Parts: sequence; C-alpha cells; structure tokens
Amino acid sequence: MPKQFLFFLFLLLITIPSTAQEDESDKDAFFIRSIYDKALTDGQGYDWLMYLTKEVGGRLSGSPEAAAAVEYTRQMLDSMGMDTVWLQPCMVPHWTRGEKEQCRMISGRMGTVDLNSVALGNSIGTGKSGVSADVVKVESLDEAEELGKQGKLRGKIVFYNRPFDQKQVSTFAAYGGAVGQRVYGPTMAAKYGAVGALVRSMTNKTDDVPHTGSTVYRDGHECPAVALSTMAADVLETALETEVVKVYFRTMCENLEPKLSYNVIGEIKGSEKPDEIILVSGHLDSWDIGTGAHDDGAGCVHSMDVVHILKQLNYKPKRTLRCVLYMNEENGGAGAYAYRDSSNLRKEYHMAAIESDRGGFTPRGFTAEGEDEIFNDKFRKLIGWLPLLEPYGLSLKKGGSGADVSKLKSQKGLLIGFLPDSQRYFDYHHTPADAPDVVNKRELELGAAAITALVYLLDKYGLD
Amino acid sequence: MPKQFLFFLFLLLITIPSTAQEDESDKDAFFIRSIYDKALTDGQGYDWLMYLTKEVGGRLSGSPEAAAAVEYTRQMLDSMGMDTVWLQPCMVPHWTRGEKEQCRMISGRMGTVDLNSVALGNSIGTGKSGVSADVVKVESLDEAEELGKQGKLRGKIVFYNRPFDQKQVSTFAAYGGAVGQRVYGPTMAAKYGAVGALVRSMTNKTDDVPHTGSTVYRDGHECPAVALSTMAADVLETALETEVVKVYFRTMCENLEPKLSYNVIGEIKGSEKPDEIILVSGHLDSWDIGTGAHDDGAGCVHSMDVVHILKQLNYKPKRTLRCVLYMNEENGGAGAYAYRDSSNLRKEYHMAAIESDRGGFTPRGFTAEGEDEIFNDKFRKLIGWLPLLEPYGLSLKKGGSGADVSKLKSQKGLLIGFLPDSQRYFDYHHTPADAPDVVNKRELELGAAAITALVYLLDKYGLD
Repeated sequence: MPKQFLFFLFLLLITIPSTAQEDESDKDAFFIRSIYDKALTDGQGYDWLMYLTKEVGGRLSGSPEAAAAVEYTRQMLDSMGMDTVWLQPCMVPHWTRGEKEQCRMISGRMGTVDLNSVALGNSIGTGKSGVSADVVKVESLDEAEELGKQGKLRGKIVFYNRPFDQKQVSTFAAYGGAVGQRVYGPTMAAKYGAVGALVRSMTNKTDDVPHTGSTVYRDGHECPAVALSTMAADVLETALETEVVKVYFRTMCENLEPKLSYNVIGEIKGSEKPDEIILVSGHLDSWDIGTGAHDDGAGCVHSMDVVHILKQLNYKPKRTLRCVLYMNEENGGAGAYAYRDSSNLRKEYHMAAIESDRGGFTPRGFTAEGEDEIFNDKFRKLIGWLPLLEPYGLSLKKGGSGADVSKLKSQKGLLIGFLPDSQRYFDYHHTPADAPDVVNKRELELGAAAITALVYLLDKYGLD
Repeated sequence: MPKQFLFFLFLLLITIPSTAQEDESDKDAFFIRSIYDKALTDGQGYDWLMYLTKEVGGRLSGSPEAAAAVEYTRQMLDSMGMDTVWLQPCMVPHWTRGEKEQCRMISGRMGTVDLNSVALGNSIGTGKSGVSADVVKVESLDEAEELGKQGKLRGKIVFYNRPFDQKQVSTFAAYGGAVGQRVYGPTMAAKYGAVGALVRSMTNKTDDVPHTGSTVYRDGHECPAVALSTMAADVLETALETEVVKVYFRTMCENLEPKLSYNVIGEIKGSEKPDEIILVSGHLDSWDIGTGAHDDGAGCVHSMDVVHILKQLNYKPKRTLRCVLYMNEENGGAGAYAYRDSSNLRKEYHMAAIESDRGGFTPRGFTAEGEDEIFNDKFRKLIGWLPLLEPYGLSLKKGGSGADVSKLKSQKGLLIGFLPDSQRYFDYHHTPADAPDVVNKRELELGAAAITALVYLLDKYGLD
C-alpha cells in the first residue's frame, strides 16, 4: 500500500465518527423540522380543543361534562391507531358549586357594597342563611396563625389579601408565592375558630373577575371560603383601613359522594425498549366556571397531537410512548394517584414523563426535575440536545414538572414540565375567560411541536 | 518584604481584574434587575398606550389624530425632564380612505357574492362608478409579469393570492415572503394594462377581516387596489377554479396634497461621550382602520418608557440618549428620511439605533444589522452581554432592524430591532383588531424593560 493511501485511510478513520455524528445531527434537525411543518399545517390539537371547550364545556370532576370529555378523547385516541387505548378508573371527589355565590361588605362609611366572588373548590357551603362576621385581614398563613393563637380569629371572617408579586418575570413564581393562602388559608382560619375565609384572587390583573381554585381542609378544620376579585379585594382593603367592616357571604356548594371517573390512556408499544416508557400528559378535568381552554384542554390536545404528528410522520417509537389524560388534577389528584399506584404495582419505569399544564402559549422550553441521585446525569443528556431545540426558541431549565407526573418521582426517571410563555396565563386561570377565544392556534401548535421534538429525542437516544 | 507577602501581593494582583470584572457584572445584573422591577411596577407605557389608542385613535399620516399624537407625546416627553424635546418637520403623504369600500364577485354559478375588502394605503380610488373586470389569479409578482408580457392582464383585475407560509415559525418571515405582492403587485398589474388589483390579506389567520397596508406605484403605473380578507380570497379562488369570474369594486380613496407633520424627539445629552448617540424609537402614525396598538403604539411607548425608567432610577447616560417617535412609517417613511437627512447633515454618529416595531408581545430578544465592515466586531460585543440578558429570555440574532432606523446605516453604527414573540402580530396587523384590548400590560412592560436593559449596557460599555 502506498503511504499516501495509508494516510488517506487514516484521515478517513479519524473523520468517520465526527461525520457520522454530524449526519445524525442533520437527520435529527431535519426530522424536527418535519415535526414543526406537520404541527403548523396539519396539527389536530386546535380542532380537538374547540370541541372540548365549545361542545363539552367546563369539565369538573364528577360532572357529566367530565364524563363526556373522557368518552370524546378516548374515541380520538382510538381513531389514531395506537396499540392500546384504555380507561383507568379512579374515584374522584364530587364537589358542586350550586347557586351563584353572594358576597357583600357592610361598611358604616361606604354602605353595602357587592363583592364579586366565587366559592373555592372543595369548600363547604354556608347554607341558605350564609355567614356574616367582622373581617380580619392578613397577608400570609404565618400572620393568620399568629393572630389565631392570640384568639383574634374566633368568630371572624379571615381575609387573605396577599397580592401577586408583579416583579416576578415568571407569573408562575408569583402564583407560587401567593397560592398557599388559597390552598391552606381557609383551614387555618377554621382551626382558630373563624367562620369563613375570603381569598384575594390569584392573578396579575386588577379587574372584577374572581378566580376559583381548590382549597384543602386539614384535620377536619373546615369553614366556607370564597375568592374575591382583585378589585373587590382592593375595595375591602380600603374600607378596612379606616373602620371595622362586616362581610356577609353565601355559598351553596356541596361535597357529594365520590364518583367513578377515569384517566384516558393510549399507548404505542416500543419496538426495541418497550420497558422504557415516555409519557406525555395533560389533565382532562377543568373548573366549572370556565371551559378549561388553557387549563388544561391545551395540555390534553398537546399530548394527543404528539401521537398524531408522530403517526403522520410514520415514526415508530423504540420506547413505549404513552399519552395520559389525567382526571381530577384540579381538586384532588385522584387520577394521578391511581396512575402512579397502578404503575408502581406493575414495576414500570417511566424514563421520562412530560406534563403540559401551563397553557397553550408560545413555547419557551421545558423544566425538568428528578431524584437527586439520577438528576444531573439525565439533565446533562437533555442539555446536549439544546442545539437542536434552540432554533425553535426552546430552553431547558431545572424546575418543577407538574402536579400529575411529579407523583412518578420514585421511578427515578426524568420528570419534565412543558414551559410556555407565562404572561397571560393568570389573566384567564380558573375563570370564565379561560375559553377558546383566548387560545391562539399557532401558539398551541408550536407547543405540540416542541413536545413532539423532545419526545423524538428522548425516544431515539434515551437517557441512560 | 517577606516572600510570603510578595506571593500574597502577586495573588492579589492577578485576582483583582477578574474580581473587578465580576463585581461589574454583579452590578450590571443588579441594575438590570432594578430596570425590570421598575418596568413591572411603575412602567408608564401601558397608560400612554391606552391614551394613544382610546383617546387619540387611528393616526394615519396627515390626519388630525396624527397631529394629536404628536402633541400628546411631545407633552409626555416634556414632562420627563429630558434636556431637549423638539418636533422635526417632515412633509407627509396625505391619503384618505373615503367611503367604505365595496367589492363583490359576480359568478355564473355562485351569483353575486360580497367580498370583504379594504383599499390599500396610497392606492388611487376607482371613483363612484367603480371598476369591473374578469379576474386573473396569480401567486407571485413573477407570474404577473410573465402573464403581463403575454398581454393577458390587459383590461383585467389581477388577484394576488399567495398565502402566508404557515411553516415559518417566525410570522415575520411568512410576511416577508408574501408582502411583495401587496407593495408592488398593483403597480405591476397597471404596467401591463390591468384596471385593478386584489391582494390576499397579509395574515396567518383564516377569517373575514381584510388587512390594509401600503402599496407603491412605480413609474406612473397606477391602478386601484384592495386587500381581500383571507376568507374572501378563498371564496374567489374556489370560484376561479371552475369558471371565469368578474369582480366589481369601488374605492373612494384619494391622494391629497402632502401635509406638514413631525417626528417627536427627546434627548438626554451624554455626560461623557455626547457624540455617540443611542436611539430608541417607534412610529407614531398608524393605519386608519385600527388604533395602532401593537403597530406601533407599543414601539412608541416602549421608547418613551426607556426614558421614564432610566430617569426613575436616576441613571445619567454617558452617551446621548435620544427617543424618536417617527412619523409616516406606514405609507412613505417621510419621518425617517427627514431624520436621516438632518442627522447626516450634522455629521452625527448613531452608535446604536434601536427600533421597536414588531408589537408589544413578550420579548424574545433583538436582531441586529450594520455595515459589513463594522458589523461582526460590534455584534460580538453585543453577544458578550448575553449572560446578562438570557435570564430574561432574551436572545441576540443577526437580522433586520426596522424600516425607520435602517436608514441610518451609512453612519456605521449598529442597527437593532426589538424582537418580541411574533405569533399573534399578524392576527391584528393593519385591521380594526389592532386595538388596546389585544395588548397585555405585562408583555408590554417586559418589552420596555428589555430595551432599557440593552440601552443601559450600550451606554455603559459602548460598542468600540
């Protein structure tokens, strides 16, 4: 062999690996581009979402609408030719709102002023006579506890008035800083003898729309609780600055017997590593006062569109792809517990579980979490794919995944939350405004594309 | 001196620069954080925008509303304690729409069908009798020219029907691929003897809202021109598939005598390098059929808020900061030419000129351009600041700046376009929907913060 040829061979040998790698990266970029093309021209998510919101409507756990949503999405998954589609039973709380809430402030100076309010989910009702008492304003659970220990909440209505921190660029961070008073404020008030609780709505906006959401009673400490619109909260706050103010409110909500409902699940068995599950998910239930367009119709149709897009592109996953539409994320998590228990019992391994429950806005990326011991390695692998995702404006950050998939933590896979732009989410969250007209078709489609791109990389390369 | 001490001194010396650098970077991060805090809690842009859109209204060049906007923003800049605020005269085209447009298709099969349309800005009117002719559909200027050369456009109405490419993730890229037919389609049609032009609206949406925008006649080739809503365009396209179709349309628009108008300019003289100008800008004029909330009320109030925020933070710029609210971006660019000519005459140097004219949506970053010979060095400097901007979701890319500031290219500074999320922009662009209710307050405020952060870095470090 002539020396030149040997040298050439040598060059070839040292070149092959990197060229091969580049080829793969080109292939990946090409496939991800085709995912986006498909999503933006042939995505089905928007149509499904219009059906869920306009035809089915608000899908509170235990309601006929929730049952209709289960049946509709089961049919849709069925129509896509997945290997298996099934309903996973779970017993869900059955809370009903009853008659429209009444709430008014009785002030010596301002007279009687109606306050726009909605009952908090899972809260007990006041009954027909309502409750009436002097109001004590607090800004935090700690402050309530402090006053409670001093006996100052007994017989009162506690008004939790902590606003969103507008300085937080992420509105979810602002929500995280305020939502504790909605979840645990009423039970804390009850623990110290209060007869009711008012909670400032969880939103960045100043308007007259109250935002519902669930409250949790602990140790049997229960009192009726409503959310006030931020404008109503401001009115009450102003009145309280100069005088003792009484509030009357009346809620006819009830906690009925739990009902049988379902998670809707579709699966494509992996061709090479069927035991490594990649899960995409949203939650089917929504609050009753809106139609759950962003929360979380968007997450459901995102997840379904992942299947649709991969099917359309004739992609056969190596790992098992499961689309899970959880029931009862809003007021109990019964679906997530049922799924987790069943999965753990069967000793399944969710290599990656993705949840979309932050709305159908323009994608900004993903946040990921996991068990300490495995997290860094797996996250590093994810970060390695950034060059393929960044051209689509996607970033990868450490952070929470979601209320449903985070329950799979003990399986030691990566838990991932889809992260869209957050600015408008709390303008609509848990109100009648969370309706089809506030969803932009392309923003929704880009979300489905982003999740599908990540699923493709997870499936092709795995995380180990 | 003991050796140990010398060694310590040595360590200190090699340590100082990097520590100093870190200190500076910490200071910068801290200051940028304070810019965001101020913007999100005390930004004035939203209030100014509500005034411009709700009180002043659509601000077409030459209209009383444009004059009112000049006076209002001059007063606002005046109230902020800038060193100088002045009006820079420019003669603007004075085009008026006149009576509501009429447009209908006369099809043998479908009968007479109304098509929702609006006259294109600067277009001539048809007069009271309107125009009527058989329609020839084309998808591009090239196709029109080809048919024109064959004599097939003579006496016809040319229908430019190229849609947005939905696969483009950036809607501005889709706009760029289609807008040529609106700008130069009518003049091309007239050149080959056509009596009118219809243009498919520039939008991603399928709806019945026509989008106006300017057209440009070349070499005296003029014919009346309207935009059709995408639904109307689809109807016409369908009819044309099977038969010869006539369209009648009537526009009463007129090009009147040019009028005197103004750019509104405010300046803070730089304390150290007054000859290096940093410009922030938007355009005051808007189309008449909407109220120019995103296009470009947002850009104006962004630019004004940069001044407000820096003033509130007691920041004294080292370089000259100039806020320019251009007149007549929409249908002529008279303001931009006047500014450029005056600036070049005075041999000014715009070290950086920033334009915000892509709406008031959540910021994604900036695009930059400049003369070839200087661009790479200056862009590298910009890229060096990414670690300070990325935490706020901002990226820096090469790309266009804007119609107004790009005219300053010969001054060899960096030309920068603010880049917000683009998905919703063409839902509203040049229609009645571009109104205050489609602007999200926080998204707008984040835009002002992003531009202010960049101005701060430009001012502190320069680009040379």
